[in-house]
Amino acid sequence: MLQISLKGQKMPESPIRKLVPFAEEAKAKGRKVYHLNIGQPDIETPEIALNAVKNYDHKVIEYSHSAGMLSLRKKLVEYYKTVDIEIGPEEIIVGAGASEALLFAFQSIMDPDDEVIIPEPFYANYNGFATNAGIKICPIISNIENGFALPPIEEFEKNINDKTKAILICNPNNPTGYLYSKKELELLRDVVKKHDLYLIADEVYREFTYDAKKHYSTMYLEGIEENVILIDSVSKRYSACGVRIGWMISHNRKVISTALKFAQARLSPPTFGQVAAQAAVDTPKTYFKKVRAEYLARRNTVVEGINKVKGAFCPNPSGAFYVVARLPIDDSEKFCRWLLTDFEYKNQTVMLAPASGFYSTQGKGKDEVRISYVLKVEDLKNSIKVLEEALKVFPGQTNM
Amino acid sequence: MLQISLKGQKMPESPIRKLVPFAEEAKAKGRKVYHLNIGQPDIETPEIALNAVKNYDHKVIEYSHSAGMLSLRKKLVEYYKTVDIEIGPEEIIVGAGASEALLFAFQSIMDPDDEVIIPEPFYANYNGFATNAGIKICPIISNIENGFALPPIEEFEKNINDKTKAILICNPNNPTGYLYSKKELELLRDVVKKHDLYLIADEVYREFTYDAKKHYSTMYLEGIEENVILIDSVSKRYSACGVRIGWMISHNRKVISTALKFAQARLSPPTFGQVAAQAAVDTPKTYFKKVRAEYLARRNTVVEGINKVKGAFCPNPSGAFYVVARLPIDDSEKFCRWLLTDFEYKNQTVMLAPASGFYSTQGKGKDEVRISYVLKVEDLKNSIKVLEEALKVFPGQTNM
Repeated sequence: MLQISLKGQKMPESPIRKLVPFAEEAKAKGRKVYHLNIGQPDIETPEIALNAVKNYDHKVIEYSHSAGMLSLRKKLVEYYKTVDIEIGPEEIIVGAGASEALLFAFQSIMDPDDEVIIPEPFYANYNGFATNAGIKICPIISNIENGFALPPIEEFEKNINDKTKAILICNPNNPTGYLYSKKELELLRDVVKKHDLYLIADEVYREFTYDAKKHYSTMYLEGIEENVILIDSVSKRYSACGVRIGWMISHNRKVISTALKFAQARLSPPTFGQVAAQAAVDTPKTYFKKVRAEYLARRNTVVEGINKVKGAFCPNPSGAFYVVARLPIDDSEKFCRWLLTDFEYKNQTVMLAPASGFYSTQGKGKDEVRISYVLKVEDLKNSIKVLEEALKVFPGQTNM
Repeated sequence: MLQISLKGQKMPESPIRKLVPFAEEAKAKGRKVYHLNIGQPDIETPEIALNAVKNYDHKVIEYSHSAGMLSLRKKLVEYYKTVDIEIGPEEIIVGAGASEALLFAFQSIMDPDDEVIIPEPFYANYNGFATNAGIKICPIISNIENGFALPPIEEFEKNINDKTKAILICNPNNPTGYLYSKKELELLRDVVKKHDLYLIADEVYREFTYDAKKHYSTMYLEGIEENVILIDSVSKRYSACGVRIGWMISHNRKVISTALKFAQARLSPPTFGQVAAQAAVDTPKTYFKKVRAEYLARRNTVVEGINKVKGAFCPNPSGAFYVVARLPIDDSEKFCRWLLTDFEYKNQTVMLAPASGFYSTQGKGKDEVRISYVLKVEDLKNSIKVLEEALKVFPGQTNM
C-alpha cells in the first residue's frame, strides 16, 4: 500500500488555518470579517526595501551563498551593532524565513526524542518544527493573571532531564505580547549554564516594545555565549512576511557549521527576498517611531476595549502585536468557529485565533483567544463592539 | 555538553562546495577559473519574469497561501496543458525550490529507515534530503558505456524489500544528461505498480532535450496515477535558480494533504519568486528555441572536445546541460582539487565536479567528472584545451 509517513500523519494542522474555510464562507455570504487572527501586519513594507527589488538589475537571478549573500550578512552585522550585539557575518545562517532558520537550529542540536522546554502558550508552528525534527516540546505553563510572565524558574529545573537539550523563548512573545525582563533572562541564563543547555531566543518582534520598556536580548547574557542561538527575521520588523528571509545567529562554531550543511542541501535562500532584506536594514528610524506609535495606539484600544467587556480580561503586554485575552466562553475553538458560521452584527464578524492552539497542555486556553492588533484603530474598535455583541448571545458563554 | 545532533553530524557536505575555497585561492592568484562545476546557467532570466518583479506594486509583501499563490498554481496548470499533462491547482504544492518540494515529498511518504531506489550516479543533494528525512538511498549503478541508460529492471526488482517505498529518477538526468525513453519509463511503471511503490520524478530539465528527442513525462504513464510524484522548478527552465521556486505535483490526495501540513508549518514560499515564476510561464517559445540551440552547440563542443582527448570518453546525452565524462585519472577528487591548487595553462584553469560525489557506491566515479556546459562555446573550447593540457601532467594520470 502507498503509505503516508508517521511524521506526516503527526504533523499538526495550524489551529488558525482550520478556520479559514469558515471565514471564506462568511465572506461569501457578504459579511465583513475583521481578521484579528493572523500575524500579517497591514503596515506598509518600507519603500527602501521595495525599491531595492525594483532596482535589482541582474540579468540572471542566480543562487546565492547557502548561508545567505555576504552583503546581506554584513548589513545584518551593522544592524546588530546598533542594538549593541557584536557578531560576525560568519555567525549568521540566512533561511527562507525564521521558520527555516529555527528548523535548522532544532535539527542541528537535537536528536529524535530530545526535548526542548518552552513556556506556554507558545507560537503554534513550534509544534510543526518539533514534529518535523522529531523532538518533543516540554511546555511550562505561564499564566494570564501575571500577564504571562516567565514561569518560576523552579518549574524549568523540575522539567530538565537527560533528554532536555534546550530552552526556547520568544521575546517579545507571540502569542502573549509579554516582554521578558533582564532579570527573567538572567534566571534563564543561570539554569542554562548549570545544565549546559542551549538557549534559543526567537526575537523577531524585538523592535516592537512599548511603555518605554527596552528589549533585552539573550545575546547580552554573559557566560553562555556558546549556548545562545538567536532567531530573527525581517518579516515582522519590516512588515515583509512574504519575502521569506529570517536567520539564526550563534557564536558556537559547531552549531553554525552544522546548520550550514542543512542550508547547503537546499542550495540558497531566495535572492529577491535577500535584496529586500538587505535594503530594509537602512529603513529610517522615523519608520519605526511611526509604526511603534501606531501599534501602541492599537494595543491600548484592544486592551481597554476588552477589559470593558463583561466577564473578559486582557493583560497589558509591552511587546509584539498580540494579546491573549480571557473571555467568558466555554470553548474557544467552538467560539471562534461560531463567530464565522453563525454570528453577525450589522453584517460584520471577527476572526480570532483560539488560544487552545497555542497550548500543548490539554484543556488549557479554552477560555482564551489570541488577538493580533494588525488592523487600524477604527477597525479594532468595531471588532471589539462585534465581539461584545457576540458574547451576549454565544450559546457557550459563561457569564451568569 | 552542548551536543550536535547525529543527523547534523551525518549531513553530507556537497562534493562541489568542498572545492570552493581552492577555487577562491586560484582566483586570488590571478588565475582565470572556468566554472564547469555548477548547475548555474549563464543564460539570462526571461525579461518577462524580471519585469513582473519590477512591476509588482503591492505595498505590503504578505505571506501567500502555504501551497503557493493560487494564481501561480493556475498558471502552472496552463503550462502543463501545453505539455499534455492534466492537473488541477489543488494538486500542486509550491516550495522554496524543488529542494524543499522534494524534501516535503520524502517526508510525506517515508518513515526513518525506509528506502528509495535511485539509479546512480545521481544528484548529490539527494543525499542531503535523504539524511534530513532519515531515509536510506539504495543506489543502482548505471554505466557510462551505454550513456547511463536505465539499469536493467531486474536490478530494481532485486533491490526491492519491505523497506522500499519509492523509486526516484531524474529525467533528463543530472549529472549524466541521459534522457529516459518511453520504454524505460514503462518498465519502471510496471515495477512500481507491481510492488505498490511511489515513483518520484525530478523533471526540472524537461525543456532541455536535443537530437529531436522529446521528453516523456512520468505523468503520462497510465495505471499509476496515485503513485507518481512530479518534482519541478523554474530554476533551470527559466535560468532563475535564485528565485527559489519549485513544486511537487501529485494526483494522490493524501500525499498532497500531508505535504501541505509541512508547507503550512513554514507558512509560505517566497512571494517575489512566485511573482517571477508566474510571469515566466508566459516566456515566449522563441526563448526556448534560442536557449536549446545554444545548449546543443555547447553539448556538441564538450562531447566532441572530450572525445578527442587522449584516454578520455564522453557519452552524447540528449538532455539537461551536463555530461559525465571518463578521464584517464586515478582519483577525480584529487584531480579536481589539483586543477585548482597546482595547475595552470596560460594562467587559466577549470573547476569540475568529481563524479565520485554523485555515487553512493564506494569507489565508483573515481575516473569520472561531471561537466556542466553552462558557459559559452568559446569558453568551453578553452576549458577543454586547459583540461587536455592538465591531463598531460597530472601526477595521477593513467594514460600509458
